[in-house]
Amino acid sequence: MNTWTDRFAERMTHVRASEIRELLKLLDQPDILSFAGGIPDPQLFPAERIQSAYEDVLKQAGAQALQYSVSEGLPELRRWIAARMSADGVSCDEGNIVITAGSQQALDLIGKLFLTRGDAVLAERPTYMGALGAFNAYEPTYGDLDAQEVPAGARLAYLVPDFANPSGRTMTRREREAVLDRASAHDLVVIEDAAYRELRFAGTSEPSLLALDVARSGSIESARTLYCGTFSKTLSPALRLGWVCAPRPVIDKLVLLKQGCDLHVSTINQMVAARVIAEDYDGHLERLRVHYRERASAMQTALARHMPMGVTWSKPQGGMFVWLKAPEGLDGAHLLEAALAEERVAFVPGAPFFAVEPQANTLRLSYSLLSPEGIDEGVRRLARVVEARLAHPGSNVKRAMRGAA
Amino acid sequence: MNTWTDRFAERMTHVRASEIRELLKLLDQPDILSFAGGIPDPQLFPAERIQSAYEDVLKQAGAQALQYSVSEGLPELRRWIAARMSADGVSCDEGNIVITAGSQQALDLIGKLFLTRGDAVLAERPTYMGALGAFNAYEPTYGDLDAQEVPAGARLAYLVPDFANPSGRTMTRREREAVLDRASAHDLVVIEDAAYRELRFAGTSEPSLLALDVARSGSIESARTLYCGTFSKTLSPALRLGWVCAPRPVIDKLVLLKQGCDLHVSTINQMVAARVIAEDYDGHLERLRVHYRERASAMQTALARHMPMGVTWSKPQGGMFVWLKAPEGLDGAHLLEAALAEERVAFVPGAPFFAVEPQANTLRLSYSLLSPEGIDEGVRRLARVVEARLAHPGSNVKRAMRGAA
Repeated sequence: MNTWTDRFAERMTHVRASEIRELLKLLDQPDILSFAGGIPDPQLFPAERIQSAYEDVLKQAGAQALQYSVSEGLPELRRWIAARMSADGVSCDEGNIVITAGSQQALDLIGKLFLTRGDAVLAERPTYMGALGAFNAYEPTYGDLDAQEVPAGARLAYLVPDFANPSGRTMTRREREAVLDRASAHDLVVIEDAAYRELRFAGTSEPSLLALDVARSGSIESARTLYCGTFSKTLSPALRLGWVCAPRPVIDKLVLLKQGCDLHVSTINQMVAARVIAEDYDGHLERLRVHYRERASAMQTALARHMPMGVTWSKPQGGMFVWLKAPEGLDGAHLLEAALAEERVAFVPGAPFFAVEPQANTLRLSYSLLSPEGIDEGVRRLARVVEARLAHPGSNVKRAMRGAA
Repeated sequence: MNTWTDRFAERMTHVRASEIRELLKLLDQPDILSFAGGIPDPQLFPAERIQSAYEDVLKQAGAQALQYSVSEGLPELRRWIAARMSADGVSCDEGNIVITAGSQQALDLIGKLFLTRGDAVLAERPTYMGALGAFNAYEPTYGDLDAQEVPAGARLAYLVPDFANPSGRTMTRREREAVLDRASAHDLVVIEDAAYRELRFAGTSEPSLLALDVARSGSIESARTLYCGTFSKTLSPALRLGWVCAPRPVIDKLVLLKQGCDLHVSTINQMVAARVIAEDYDGHLERLRVHYRERASAMQTALARHMPMGVTWSKPQGGMFVWLKAPEGLDGAHLLEAALAEERVAFVPGAPFFAVEPQANTLRLSYSLLSPEGIDEGVRRLARVVEARLAHPGSNVKRAMRGAA
């Protein structure tokens, strides 16, 4: 009998456990102050409304809520999303929407639809690690979205234009137009990951890439951008509800793939979400924005107060993330080891967020789960770790050599 | 700009809409008696228990039920499943279980893990159409599991040993052992789709393929069988909850793939299922069995009463399906057209259930949704359609020619 490894498909050489994810599993200890998890503050889930929605749906829809349903998703939910997309500059109808198991599944289905082994995906540096996890199974190569040269076989451009995970960065209007110009010149399909778009707490909204694409191409049916939305950051990730908004020929194929993958998203969860969002969704979003604005502000204050010279960081206008650059020579993974051991503070090292040419001296900090006081204390501890490494730069090297021994 | 079709990945030439599924979408009209849908009777969903479980979970687990959770699934649910598998002859623990979005996702993840383009999957004739839908995206070829020759590149053997969809057939112990012998001789990985296993209403239970495999190989860690289970036929398909039980190295890779595909199954739905099954699951299953036994019996009586000579059918010991063979020369797809137009009765033609060498004169009849009276009337109508075709055999040919014109 062969070993299992001999039996696995060739694509599995591209699918590897993330050491970081494995490490982060160990962070549940209550004495650790963690900037690691990129997940919403559970205090913000509309738990009561969700609870009464489950009750109402089961009373009113009864057995239908517990039965199989169509692969494209609940018509009522798709219509609501289409209306919301239309209000955000993307005139469309429910035929342009497929419901997915979070936007993670949207990325997987899009990879499955477009990527043949060896095709290139262009991504930002850094980019969302989970997108790489979805695409890797389809064996693409990767290129830098901002590099001068577009590699041969480039097919997809993947980006998070608003308050990106991990960088917290928002693209300007001009940068968005430039991406579309480039996509048009090289016939790239653009994947707009809009996971955080509803969480703007500062500055003014930029049009989505899809809205700009529709404006220039005349209609969603002529656009080349596929917009991935989600309720995971706004309602609850546990419902596993996201969507793709795209031209119909793309939606039709995604529905076929969805059917082969898992038939459809949980019927009852779709009904519950449709009910919860029907009632003052914008008021709910406003509460989230107030909350994250306070956290983001505490984060900026703490970083300015505690971080030593030579450390820089992003100032997000929304979302959950600050991207920190330590001086060259410091390594995020080693900093994490030290931070956990010496100061009981956690974050995610930046290197795994790069599809190409990782920058080891970067860190992702999420302010979504800590109180303003916790943020201040956590940053103070983290600053001490960075300072100690700056004072004794050799300690990184020793640590790395020990690790290799 | 290229057309979308030019942009899709090569694998998409293997992913096609099923004409049958498209046709079945049109069957919602209330005057049609339908044997088509292979879905559970919604009367049998434990709706009240599910409703109170949602209430309890949201009250007790609160925000945790609405948060992200681990890709392998809820430990409590995995432990319950492992205990149940152990009681069914498969000694294992939660490390041998991954929770999937129904067993459909189990088939997709298994295809992704094992199939490289051109690998062969051996399947029964007929086999479950949805399994082909999952595997096709990984571009395998197909072979007949029962053929003398095993094709080069054969990697997976897929089968539904208990009350198969669509044939209703149950494999004998000897047939099960023979499959394992063959798998061992050709180093095949065996996919046991156990979707209907809990729905036996007649005869005596045969050991699962995995149980036989564990018995002969000594431990689940030495087995080559991957068991796919589901709560879709027993609790509710809308929760999207299934599992794979397999050796740990396989589970570990499936968890990685699950993470890239959609992170995890709905947290709250897993908690709800764990709560519902903790309370008299076997009593609930017994109610299902009584119900389906009555329907299956009505079906056999009606078929014997109404069907003309030359028509044969299977007698299932569980599950939801009867497989009917009309005399050679009759075509299930043409029969369906006539049945809908002339008698307002529906079923699924058999041909799409064949991965290789389809038999056009076959039909799948599901008795899960009709009352005993509805079953009798539906079979009476269907028998009239078959009789008319037998009396005027040329009508098929004319119909086919019209269709081609």
